[in-house]
Amino acid sequence: MNNLEGKFIVLDGPDGCGKSTQAELLSKWVELQGVSVATFRDPGTTAIGEKVRDILLDIAHESMTANTEMLLYMAARAQLWAEEIEPALEAGKCVIMDRWISSTFAYQGYAGKLGTEKVLEVAQHSLERIWPEVTIVLDVDTETAAKRMDRELDRMEQKGKDFHAKVREGFLRLADLGQDVTVIDATQTIDAIHEQVIAAIEEI
Amino acid sequence: MNNLEGKFIVLDGPDGCGKSTQAELLSKWVELQGVSVATFRDPGTTAIGEKVRDILLDIAHESMTANTEMLLYMAARAQLWAEEIEPALEAGKCVIMDRWISSTFAYQGYAGKLGTEKVLEVAQHSLERIWPEVTIVLDVDTETAAKRMDRELDRMEQKGKDFHAKVREGFLRLADLGQDVTVIDATQTIDAIHEQVIAAIEEI
Repeated sequence: MNNLEGKFIVLDGPDGCGKSTQAELLSKWVELQGVSVATFRDPGTTAIGEKVRDILLDIAHESMTANTEMLLYMAARAQLWAEEIEPALEAGKCVIMDRWISSTFAYQGYAGKLGTEKVLEVAQHSLERIWPEVTIVLDVDTETAAKRMDRELDRMEQKGKDFHAKVREGFLRLADLGQDVTVIDATQTIDAIHEQVIAAIEEI
Repeated sequence: MNNLEGKFIVLDGPDGCGKSTQAELLSKWVELQGVSVATFRDPGTTAIGEKVRDILLDIAHESMTANTEMLLYMAARAQLWAEEIEPALEAGKCVIMDRWISSTFAYQGYAGKLGTEKVLEVAQHSLERIWPEVTIVLDVDTETAAKRMDRELDRMEQKGKDFHAKVREGFLRLADLGQDVTVIDATQTIDAIHEQVIAAIEEI
């Protein structure tokens, strides 16, 4: 049995860090190792999760509290776990996530001032699995990230520079939790980042 | 100051118990006492909450887990609290709720087998206020309730007789929590129920 079968891998980081590109490259690499891959975006993927995602990112919902945000992200996540992630892991696939609980930790818990403790407590009581085998954080400064997002921004992306600086800080705090978190400098070239992502995966 | 000002009152019970009718009658009665009333339905009322409600009740979402349901109900509730309930209570209004945490306790916690403990734990970590001054449960057997719902049913209402019998049982278990819960036989006439609702309110 290949070591990557049934593994749960999360790519996370601030908006504009290049998660989606790296998830795609990683996915191809895992397949080249002869292991089936399932890639999911959180929130979303399931029909229910995509509708929750629409509510979360709709710029009309400026009155949404950090608490409501957290609960909606958890709801989408719980459904994604039950419908897609758990069956994929049980079938021996390598699951690659575009975001997971680490995002709620950084966005609502740390930057949104809900408190990271609160996010973890609600996650513990409502999710079947919180921590993946490894969380890879693609770290990027807000200026570089902003330049990469030359398009219409959603509600979370529109929250401004100070908020996103806190989000970045929140992601860097993840390492303090004693979980397997690898931080990679995402201002490097796509290839250089990809190599470091693979190095992190090879360690598990 | 009138005793009803700033009070938080919940009307709850199985589908078809007559909550909405009683909420309307109670609302008129409170206004006759010279106190402003705010009536909210949960989930819903806020723009965000109504969209969450649509996801919850859409019959296409048969794959939704009890866990996802619970988190979506909590999200709608957190938003309703921040946007409407808290400001109304602070303005001295008497707030009358059509459903609240008691519904999640009965539907997802007890009938949905998520466990009532889990529902209360997530509520404690995510809601600013769980318990109202009084929760009035309108108790009705499933046969009488079904007869009253001679219309197209939503996803929760469609869950079948056994599920709804458990929901009823769940509502009756609320009294064990040591909170202020009044159970009223909702197979009586509308007027008789209304009188008992008022008697329960007058006790607070």
